[in-house]
Amino acid sequence: MFYASDNTGPVHPKVLEALTGANDGHAAAYGSDPLTEAAQDRIREVFEAPDAAVHLVPTGTAANALLLATYAAPWSTVFCSQEAHIHVDECNAPEFYSGGAKLTLVDTSEGQITPVALETAITAEETRGLHGPQRGPVSLTQATETGTVYSLDSTRSLAGVARRYGLPVHMDGARLANAIPAIGCSPAEATWKAGVDMLSFGGTKNGLMGVEAAILFDPSKSREFELRRKRGGHLFSKHRYLAAQMLAYLEGGLWLELAAAANAACQKLADGLRDAPGANLMYRPQANMVFARLPRSRHRQLFAAGAQYHLWGDELDGGAEDEPLAARFVTDWSSRETDTDRFLDLLDRANR
Amino acid sequence: MFYASDNTGPVHPKVLEALTGANDGHAAAYGSDPLTEAAQDRIREVFEAPDAAVHLVPTGTAANALLLATYAAPWSTVFCSQEAHIHVDECNAPEFYSGGAKLTLVDTSEGQITPVALETAITAEETRGLHGPQRGPVSLTQATETGTVYSLDSTRSLAGVARRYGLPVHMDGARLANAIPAIGCSPAEATWKAGVDMLSFGGTKNGLMGVEAAILFDPSKSREFELRRKRGGHLFSKHRYLAAQMLAYLEGGLWLELAAAANAACQKLADGLRDAPGANLMYRPQANMVFARLPRSRHRQLFAAGAQYHLWGDELDGGAEDEPLAARFVTDWSSRETDTDRFLDLLDRANR
Amino acid sequence: MFYASDNTGPVHPKVLEALTGANDGHAAAYGSDPLTEAAQDRIREVFEAPDAAVHLVPTGTAANALLLATYAAPWSTVFCSQEAHIHVDECNAPEFYSGGAKLTLVDTSEGQITPVALETAITAEETRGLHGPQRGPVSLTQATETGTVYSLDSTRSLAGVARRYGLPVHMDGARLANAIPAIGCSPAEATWKAGVDMLSFGGTKNGLMGVEAAILFDPSKSREFELRRKRGGHLFSKHRYLAAQMLAYLEGGLWLELAAAANAACQKLADGLRDAPGANLMYRPQANMVFARLPRSRHRQLFAAGAQYHLWGDELDGGAEDEPLAARFVTDWSSRETDTDRFLDLLDRANR
Amino acid sequence: MFYASDNTGPVHPKVLEALTGANDGHAAAYGSDPLTEAAQDRIREVFEAPDAAVHLVPTGTAANALLLATYAAPWSTVFCSQEAHIHVDECNAPEFYSGGAKLTLVDTSEGQITPVALETAITAEETRGLHGPQRGPVSLTQATETGTVYSLDSTRSLAGVARRYGLPVHMDGARLANAIPAIGCSPAEATWKAGVDMLSFGGTKNGLMGVEAAILFDPSKSREFELRRKRGGHLFSKHRYLAAQMLAYLEGGLWLELAAAANAACQKLADGLRDAPGANLMYRPQANMVFARLPRSRHRQLFAAGAQYHLWGDELDGGAEDEPLAARFVTDWSSRETDTDRFLDLLDRANR
Repeated sequence: MFYASDNTGPVHPKVLEALTGANDGHAAAYGSDPLTEAAQDRIREVFEAPDAAVHLVPTGTAANALLLATYAAPWSTVFCSQEAHIHVDECNAPEFYSGGAKLTLVDTSEGQITPVALETAITAEETRGLHGPQRGPVSLTQATETGTVYSLDSTRSLAGVARRYGLPVHMDGARLANAIPAIGCSPAEATWKAGVDMLSFGGTKNGLMGVEAAILFDPSKSREFELRRKRGGHLFSKHRYLAAQMLAYLEGGLWLELAAAANAACQKLADGLRDAPGANLMYRPQANMVFARLPRSRHRQLFAAGAQYHLWGDELDGGAEDEPLAARFVTDWSSRETDTDRFLDLLDRANR
Repeated sequence: MFYASDNTGPVHPKVLEALTGANDGHAAAYGSDPLTEAAQDRIREVFEAPDAAVHLVPTGTAANALLLATYAAPWSTVFCSQEAHIHVDECNAPEFYSGGAKLTLVDTSEGQITPVALETAITAEETRGLHGPQRGPVSLTQATETGTVYSLDSTRSLAGVARRYGLPVHMDGARLANAIPAIGCSPAEATWKAGVDMLSFGGTKNGLMGVEAAILFDPSKSREFELRRKRGGHLFSKHRYLAAQMLAYLEGGLWLELAAAANAACQKLADGLRDAPGANLMYRPQANMVFARLPRSRHRQLFAAGAQYHLWGDELDGGAEDEPLAARFVTDWSSRETDTDRFLDLLDRANR
Repeated sequence: MFYASDNTGPVHPKVLEALTGANDGHAAAYGSDPLTEAAQDRIREVFEAPDAAVHLVPTGTAANALLLATYAAPWSTVFCSQEAHIHVDECNAPEFYSGGAKLTLVDTSEGQITPVALETAITAEETRGLHGPQRGPVSLTQATETGTVYSLDSTRSLAGVARRYGLPVHMDGARLANAIPAIGCSPAEATWKAGVDMLSFGGTKNGLMGVEAAILFDPSKSREFELRRKRGGHLFSKHRYLAAQMLAYLEGGLWLELAAAANAACQKLADGLRDAPGANLMYRPQANMVFARLPRSRHRQLFAAGAQYHLWGDELDGGAEDEPLAARFVTDWSSRETDTDRFLDLLDRANR
Repeated sequence: MFYASDNTGPVHPKVLEALTGANDGHAAAYGSDPLTEAAQDRIREVFEAPDAAVHLVPTGTAANALLLATYAAPWSTVFCSQEAHIHVDECNAPEFYSGGAKLTLVDTSEGQITPVALETAITAEETRGLHGPQRGPVSLTQATETGTVYSLDSTRSLAGVARRYGLPVHMDGARLANAIPAIGCSPAEATWKAGVDMLSFGGTKNGLMGVEAAILFDPSKSREFELRRKRGGHLFSKHRYLAAQMLAYLEGGLWLELAAAANAACQKLADGLRDAPGANLMYRPQANMVFARLPRSRHRQLFAAGAQYHLWGDELDGGAEDEPLAARFVTDWSSRETDTDRFLDLLDRANR
């Protein structure tokens, strides 16, 4: 019953096999090897973006911070949601890499920025000439940190607002794989065709060991990105092992398969939670996360039985037993049906 | 009718005289001259803080950013109001000098942070261990950017909240002189006795040419501040000319006299605006700024007659003539009664 | 005949096995898993440093820059050699992570800083009060970038100079494993017992995929290091896979075995080069790198036959055929004796 | 007998008068006032550069660091001399403002970079692709920190080398006024016509209170400079007082007059030192600084008699009385002939 994070799950066996496969003899270092080239090409194919610049990095924070820094001047501000990973979970990495840019927090509904809120935030900045921060990139998270998914229309509208003000659009796609089915479109449609300029394409949460791709659909700043990556200590010498993982991930659509498994497990969990008396879903679970409120006593029982997940902004100790406490449940490709059954059974029994 | 800013007014003649007085022969550079020592001593006296470290800098942004950077780790966040000068008017200087700290915006009432809002903001941060930003200094502006003044109780309460979480307190005192009369206390009481750890003590808006004092009531980080000042290019070689201004400013309480003059002009202006039909004061004018809403047509008439002031978040063109538009009026030590009379007369006539 | 770099070699099979072994079910993320704890403990044992703080990072540049930044103020200067990896090969990462510290280049002999040169460099700095950079950490590379190894006496003397000026000592131990046999001492003796305060302990060049350990022998700045690591995007979520590699590396002394293999291959290569007519060794090859000058024509023949190595500061094209050109040859744990035989045979034949 | 620095001298009376002249009523803040515009225009005239962007800042360090940061990427290196003020006297300000650029120290002769040494330094960098720092601006100091002056040919040759590698040229002209007579050319010829792209044009050392002009002969990065200036806290609100000083400085060629006075005083001092037994001039004194070695005993006598100047790298205490110790003597516009007479008389008597 492991729902703490999609970071706690294992690596897919095919990915490990690919590492073994790559482990043959010598290969050029720092990304000049044939596997890296192949992985870059493969990503360009998957995204139907033959001109895109593609660079592999080990963490999502690195991908986000390096891409944003490439597009956000130190005196600018990045528009993102209050819940954005880049704001709450990266310990000021975007500020660090950009040399001091701000993050302007945009109001959200179900974790999603709305076009109106975005435009309001944009127009509120830069009314003071060079005294205030200058407008910088817009960053969207897909799937969002609340487990919802921007529709294609939403992405297009938001990118349209950004475009109107001349601002580049970043997508934090740590869970893009999980979002794709809910959007019901191709990777290209979900990103650059909808107006996304640069993408953090996640792998780690979906079966890789620690590999993300930073994609610049307009390659003109590719060299700058590479210098920033090197300077940040994120250029792997034995680069083939990042590339091998990414190749295995994309091979035969494995990435979408893994995401589909995680999403299905989430759906099952969400259905159970929805039906459980005393439980309230907080957002539409459209990817691999479901947020729900359960009475404190219920949480105690679940934790006691070994369920692993995080309360979300609430504390287990100190209040009434029937007080509803928010929690986040995350599934991953390796979530087992038997686990979910056991969890739902526990929930059911607890409710009796 | 000059109400655009207290930055547009002239330097007080005594300050210019002091420059001439200081202009005699050679003097040690970089603050090792006797005038600088005298100015530092004088500030320590005025603030009854014999151990405080005092350093002169040319701009308020420099004072704020250097002080905050001395106390805010790059991975921390500074708590300040949505309207704070450090947030809206310093083009990311605090972020730059701190090496990438964030600013967490705290809700305000009349431009003032409330203890409850502060505590809410503080407890919301650092719930994520080392993933999110760490809690950093609390910054208060006194007088606030909306022309109100924190009462002594408010300052103490806010500093108390900060203290409870182990956070240092910064005061942006660009207009501290204008606040002192409204608080009705000594400079020491208004600052370190109320829990303020470091103060940007303004002079420029109140009759100096470009001099602010950065005061560290606890001098233990004084050397670090000096290194940051030098590295920021803010260590004046011909330092005596900063010191001479500051000495003249404090001599015989000139600084409080000048502030009193500005405040009186503001009071007169505010009284007139309060009585004017169609005008609405937005905040209590407790220092040298008054914010008011006037119909668009009235603004047109005032501007046409030569009045200088800024609309505040509103645009002159594009809407109904009777739509109320917000404006900021700032007085300074040199504001002339005849000007105010003329302005109020215009307002009066316009209203007839 | 792969002598381009120890970054081009494969991962040791036992390391890959360890990844598979670690790939079982769920594990806490971000280094809170049992494998990470075990790896940290194991490193503390190997270095006989029960109190040391140990943190894993993916690259040597990350380890170096994060450790140096933890100890080098932005207004300080780091003392290192002209050839130091942190100076020539990290694209300003130390400057970036430290927020703008300088690197002061110290004269070397055979790539080694001498105590006299170090003291000269240290005393030359900070003669200008707060106008110039302040003295910061001393960084030594062991084995050096020229393939030589600091004797225990040398390390002690250099650390002694640093200590005399109150400066912390960093060791870039990307190839520490290769140096240990030449020093003939324990890891503890080579490092903290000789005065080293913080160590970048390399694994990647010696059979790992991308894992280094940053060791703070004095753990008091451990938390700061962790915040810097997170902010730099170097905190792996699936941390167990870093830990598993490190555990396999230390298990049964594998790390020293692999280094011994690399060193032996280097020795054989060096012996052959030493005997080859027209070849001149440039430095004593004490670890796994040998630098030699060979006539341009000889390089052409070797490259044509498929040998892979880098010319070092010289260019293949454009001069006389008998002009001696410097080259670097690096061996790694996987260097094959048959390759070396073939290389030496080629050299021999070329010389006939 | 004040030869410690040209920073210790007074402000020229005409400059003070100009401050009083500017102190009339209200003026737009932050450089939007007519005096600022006039000063910018006047500088463009003096430099025959109608398109240049001109921005006033309070210190030379600010001018240098802001200009360099505008042209030096964080991952680049600035080429300058070992003695450069930006290297030894700015406490890492260029590193700070640029976000972590390096300074590569170029060998000098009499404090002057030679074209050969510059080209050697340039070609030594960027041989390692994106692993090492990228080539950045070349910075020349005119007059140099050793009191010599680059000839027009030298400047042109050095700028030519830079141009050949596509590198922009910065001139630290803190003492450009003192250099102009020795070069024997117009300000335009000394700068942009010789290949200089950006100039820190000094005023503070030559009779101003604290004003320098940053000149971008190519104005395309002017807005970026302004944002950097604001973010650095260097945008003066009461900007007219900077402008008034600069206008007085340029009016009727006052700046050249003042420099000529300083240079003449230096020449007289240098002549006396040249003739004094036991004294050795170290460099050709071509501007307002002379460096000389005198026996320790002689320094003691001079200091005892009240002479103010700095030993240069040497220490007064601790060696033989006849050991020659280096010293720097700086004159300024206010240096009095009677002082110099007295100094030379002392020297003469001491030598008898």
